[in-house]
Amino acid sequence: MDHLELLRELHQKNDSKIVMLVADGLGGLPLEPGGMTELETAKTPQLDALAKRGVLGGSIPVKPGITPGSGPGHLGLFGYDPLQFIIGRGALEATGIGFELGPNDVAIRANFCTLDAAGNITDRRAGRISSEESAPLAIRLRQVKIPGVEVFVEPVKEHRFVVVLRAPGLGGHVADTDPQRTGVPPLQPTATKPDSEKTAQVAAEFVKQANVLLKDEKKANGMTLRGFSAKPNLPSYEQVYGLKAAAIAVYPMYKGLARLVGMEIVGKAQTLAEQIDVLEQNWAKYDFFFIHFKYTDSTGEDGNFAAKVQRIEELDGVMSRITKLQPTVLIVTGDHSTPSFLKSHSWHPVPTLLVSDCCRSDESQAFGERDCVRGGLGQFEAKYLMTLALANAGRLGKFGA
Amino acid sequence: MDHLELLRELHQKNDSKIVMLVADGLGGLPLEPGGMTELETAKTPQLDALAKRGVLGGSIPVKPGITPGSGPGHLGLFGYDPLQFIIGRGALEATGIGFELGPNDVAIRANFCTLDAAGNITDRRAGRISSEESAPLAIRLRQVKIPGVEVFVEPVKEHRFVVVLRAPGLGGHVADTDPQRTGVPPLQPTATKPDSEKTAQVAAEFVKQANVLLKDEKKANGMTLRGFSAKPNLPSYEQVYGLKAAAIAVYPMYKGLARLVGMEIVGKAQTLAEQIDVLEQNWAKYDFFFIHFKYTDSTGEDGNFAAKVQRIEELDGVMSRITKLQPTVLIVTGDHSTPSFLKSHSWHPVPTLLVSDCCRSDESQAFGERDCVRGGLGQFEAKYLMTLALANAGRLGKFGA
Repeated sequence: MDHLELLRELHQKNDSKIVMLVADGLGGLPLEPGGMTELETAKTPQLDALAKRGVLGGSIPVKPGITPGSGPGHLGLFGYDPLQFIIGRGALEATGIGFELGPNDVAIRANFCTLDAAGNITDRRAGRISSEESAPLAIRLRQVKIPGVEVFVEPVKEHRFVVVLRAPGLGGHVADTDPQRTGVPPLQPTATKPDSEKTAQVAAEFVKQANVLLKDEKKANGMTLRGFSAKPNLPSYEQVYGLKAAAIAVYPMYKGLARLVGMEIVGKAQTLAEQIDVLEQNWAKYDFFFIHFKYTDSTGEDGNFAAKVQRIEELDGVMSRITKLQPTVLIVTGDHSTPSFLKSHSWHPVPTLLVSDCCRSDESQAFGERDCVRGGLGQFEAKYLMTLALANAGRLGKFGA
Repeated sequence: MDHLELLRELHQKNDSKIVMLVADGLGGLPLEPGGMTELETAKTPQLDALAKRGVLGGSIPVKPGITPGSGPGHLGLFGYDPLQFIIGRGALEATGIGFELGPNDVAIRANFCTLDAAGNITDRRAGRISSEESAPLAIRLRQVKIPGVEVFVEPVKEHRFVVVLRAPGLGGHVADTDPQRTGVPPLQPTATKPDSEKTAQVAAEFVKQANVLLKDEKKANGMTLRGFSAKPNLPSYEQVYGLKAAAIAVYPMYKGLARLVGMEIVGKAQTLAEQIDVLEQNWAKYDFFFIHFKYTDSTGEDGNFAAKVQRIEELDGVMSRITKLQPTVLIVTGDHSTPSFLKSHSWHPVPTLLVSDCCRSDESQAFGERDCVRGGLGQFEAKYLMTLALANAGRLGKFGA
């Protein structure tokens, strides 16, 4: 029996509240052998007190050794096997800029490029065009008209933009048109499965009209299309877990990911303190709260150990406001590790803390990577964290008699 | 390659002896934060000595967060993936009362109910009829005669009884006839797969004749049928492991589960001491011994922490009689946790102890939940415990060259 099927069958409702606080990229590494990680360095009296009350473990985002992007990282935390549920690149890009995909949509990542008189690519990134220059061009492409198809064009950054085609009967199985080299023209959009023949035709028509609209541009007079993808078909939190779920996030990507699993986006918080305000204001209305804190990841990506430590301490500072609400289950974790030592996402298990009245506490004294290794949750695949959350909330019935 | 296939291929025979002592519901929780569990509280000098010699770990019955019933809990311990091998509710109920299912059987859980003159249900549990009143009625239903079909009816408890239909060509795919509400008649038995059309017809005929036999009863003049299921098709211990296995259990449910995997039920022990007598008497005759101790679960279900502690101490008291037999591999575990704090089965990993001459002992000093978290077996899915047992017994060949 499939795991989500099992949860669909076993879940039951009660008046418990679950909070999942995701500090993006939480896990880290020491700067020198034998040293302490960012989380171990940070002064976190509140998280340490929770670690004593709760149970720790290491969450493996996908599989040992696999470093996830934000998409698979969050799908795992949300309980969806990230190797089974794949979010296409186009869909993720659209999600990342806050575009709400519908069931008839195909999203495409597009790059402006420079073409010579023969139509061959001379620069695959349109001379590293600035966002200021490229955004009006992307908006100009909204003039493309294709009968029976709604076309959306959204600027992203520099040479990148997003195209969404909306019509019945479109499939996401079209090959990239980027030839990956210069001196040749962009490839023709070609369906890789029969369900996407129409998409390929519509995309070709889009490129044809767009190229006319861009023909007088010096840098950005052509484009390549990549990552064609339909909206991923994820069962919702309500269906699988019976949870009315709220997402409290600042950045569009995380709001988008939460929306894909049927969470409601609440509030317009711009700071962590405001996110907790939103949590308090909505406490009565939802069963489950996903709170996303971005800066543990961005400081890690910057390679700024001290700044990441500071961000973790900022997070520690709001914990008492959360515990005051007395959640039945409180989880603090991350979608992956982002060690400042590596300046990138990594595969290392993510420090994870779960507190409930029946969590079977371990002997951990502090919230940190070393304590998590010895923690009572052991090392587990992130996709089981939601199951543990539901169990600790008394929201799962018994399997079999 | 499927795990059981692998074991079918790799197992080899020798004269080793494996003992698996299952203390039902062994794992627990402290009564207050930071306190000790039942197992940690119990004085268990013998188990602690074995913990020093052996290796500990936490057995996850199904998947993290999933609480199993006795059926899936034991299938896991016996090495059968409980999500792959599902025991139908009727089959489990029949097994639980000691009915030995055959290959042509379909087992059904039946409930007496009260019908009004129009045939609508007025009480789905026949006015909570007592076992004393209901048992003779169940036995009366043995008068039902259906050509070509053997019909068995067994009383269970209060309004519940079991019906087993025995004939070639019966399938277990028939929908429940309980409409889950009053004011409407029981549903007609309806096949959900073509292989069970005959079962649905036979069941309808059973109900028709049974209703005539019950027509003058005030409370129990009708019935609903649920959990139609054929005997689960489990490969035997002999086939998969090459083990001649004996089960030493007191309660019918556990004898029944053991029988489903081809164990022989030996002895008629009523107490733990008698179970060990049976073990000693049959030591030469079998390779594998499953000993089931019920009371760690029932005291947990009662929420009686002190009584569970006492039962664990009782278990400790017989360990020297087992070790005196010098089993090659001795395992002490449970099919799930039953913390008295929760008064129910739970999802928490089950303390597990394995002793053999080649088990690679860890640093554990005592048998308890905290030591198991740090144990050398780590946390593992219960379905791998039999593989570890065979390996430690020298009963598994090398995989690949």
